[in-house]
Amino acid sequence: MCTACHGEDGTSRTAGTPHLGGQDRLYLERALADYRSGKRQHVPMTSLANALQPADIEALAAWYSARPGFAGSVP
Amino acid sequence: MCTACHGEDGTSRTAGTPHLGGQDRLYLERALADYRSGKRQHVPMTSLANALQPADIEALAAWYSARPGFAGSVP
Repeated sequence: MCTACHGEDGTSRTAGTPHLGGQDRLYLERALADYRSGKRQHVPMTSLANALQPADIEALAAWYSARPGFAGSVP
Repeated sequence: MCTACHGEDGTSRTAGTPHLGGQDRLYLERALADYRSGKRQHVPMTSLANALQPADIEALAAWYSARPGFAGSVP
């Protein structure tokens, strides 16, 4: 479900949506945790994060952080 | 002041701190606006964002989004 907004391999095609590929793993874990706790508020992500289990969050953060990143994708 | 945590050119050297180089410009603008409004809460960034003027936010978002990005910087 993540790819609909964040793109395949974590390169967003939509202005305003962050690229995730190659992003810091612990930051991604915290972002999802913050959506769950309400420290970070953004309607789609709050709903999606609340559907994740801790193991899902760890797996997603590990996967996205291991993508090649998005060098040069944004001028 | 941003570089202390987010690194020169937006490549963080600290686990848990997001890379910003090459990130989506509108996303970066919204992130800073959300810290100012309280929709996003993280102690250092809330204080720093509150010290910025709208023109500063636009300039920072434009600058970081134009960096080359961080392909391969995180294994």
